[in-house]
Amino acid sequence: MQRKGILIVVSGFSGAGKGTLMKRMVERFDNYALSVSMTTRKPRPGEKEGVSYFFVEKDEFERCIGQDGLVEYASYCGNYYGTPRAWVQEQLEAGRDVILEIEIQGALKVKEKFPDALLLFVMTPSAQELKRRLEGRGTESQDDIRGRLQRAVEESRGIEAYDYIIVNDDLEECIAQMNRTIEAARMRPDRKKEFVDQFRLELEEILKGEN
Amino acid sequence: MQRKGILIVVSGFSGAGKGTLMKRMVERFDNYALSVSMTTRKPRPGEKEGVSYFFVEKDEFERCIGQDGLVEYASYCGNYYGTPRAWVQEQLEAGRDVILEIEIQGALKVKEKFPDALLLFVMTPSAQELKRRLEGRGTESQDDIRGRLQRAVEESRGIEAYDYIIVNDDLEECIAQMNRTIEAARMRPDRKKEFVDQFRLELEEILKGEN
Repeated sequence: MQRKGILIVVSGFSGAGKGTLMKRMVERFDNYALSVSMTTRKPRPGEKEGVSYFFVEKDEFERCIGQDGLVEYASYCGNYYGTPRAWVQEQLEAGRDVILEIEIQGALKVKEKFPDALLLFVMTPSAQELKRRLEGRGTESQDDIRGRLQRAVEESRGIEAYDYIIVNDDLEECIAQMNRTIEAARMRPDRKKEFVDQFRLELEEILKGEN
Repeated sequence: MQRKGILIVVSGFSGAGKGTLMKRMVERFDNYALSVSMTTRKPRPGEKEGVSYFFVEKDEFERCIGQDGLVEYASYCGNYYGTPRAWVQEQLEAGRDVILEIEIQGALKVKEKFPDALLLFVMTPSAQELKRRLEGRGTESQDDIRGRLQRAVEESRGIEAYDYIIVNDDLEECIAQMNRTIEAARMRPDRKKEFVDQFRLELEEILKGEN
């Protein structure tokens, strides 16, 4: 039986450390693949096709939308960004677990198209800690930080839609927790259906043989 | 914040090794308490009140049923057996995770009364292995074994009602898997509600303070 991969959607407050967390997950465990987005933005120096992004022209992107070829998409600063459905499905079929980092609206769209996607939400251990981390970056104005905290208040109201909340206190513990959560999801009956059906068939064979 | 315990219901095919598994879980981890049943059966030599069972008279048991004081109950060989609700609730409030070993009908009743109970189903890695283990006990007739395999076929059709399927191949791996699954369940949004509400409150306080 080929194990089918799990589609994992990761959202979380800006400053909660999602980026580092996912980078480490992919480095640490062989089974994870970080989703590569499709964009109409022009490549920047050093960016690689199929690694940084899939770079396409606007008409190709729009044809993709028309053919329902994207798991989710959004437009930002005049460019489209989206997640190619075919790529995601290929990875899942090959047994790889695909990690998608998107915000809550996109996450809900993914859940519609892939009902068995696993939705994870990353938080800091406290609001003060979130503020501290945003300030620690040293790259953002007080206004930016305020905006991000305001956004966190709003996002916190949508958390019920997620399957699990991961608290990023100690990074190592957080990686372990995230991996544990995904491993547990593999044991849900809908993901074990083939195994259970096969088991029942074997049982029936045994019982027939003993008649 | 006092952590509330999780009510864990364990079912599984006869011969899958539930008994050993749960005994080890309780020995290994401090947070688990094995549920103690109430029964109208007379104590056998060596059995201790409140450890083996809570021993009561028939009229007391029936009063308990009438007062909805049991999480689930059944009658077997002329005696009642049931799970006292008050004991379970006390343990959960004290932050202990209560493990209940019952069959599928009882499990579904528990889920009705405790919707956030975690339902686990223990299987062997294959049907042949189940047969092998039942035969290995050396205590049962071919007819008994046949009956248990037949029952396993029926039970396998109810598996969808469970939250997770645990495959008991290697015992140590199985213990780890079961513990991991329960730890993951702690991170569901409904169990983190207090934390999220507190977080939002703090965020709002921070934003107010900066006005």
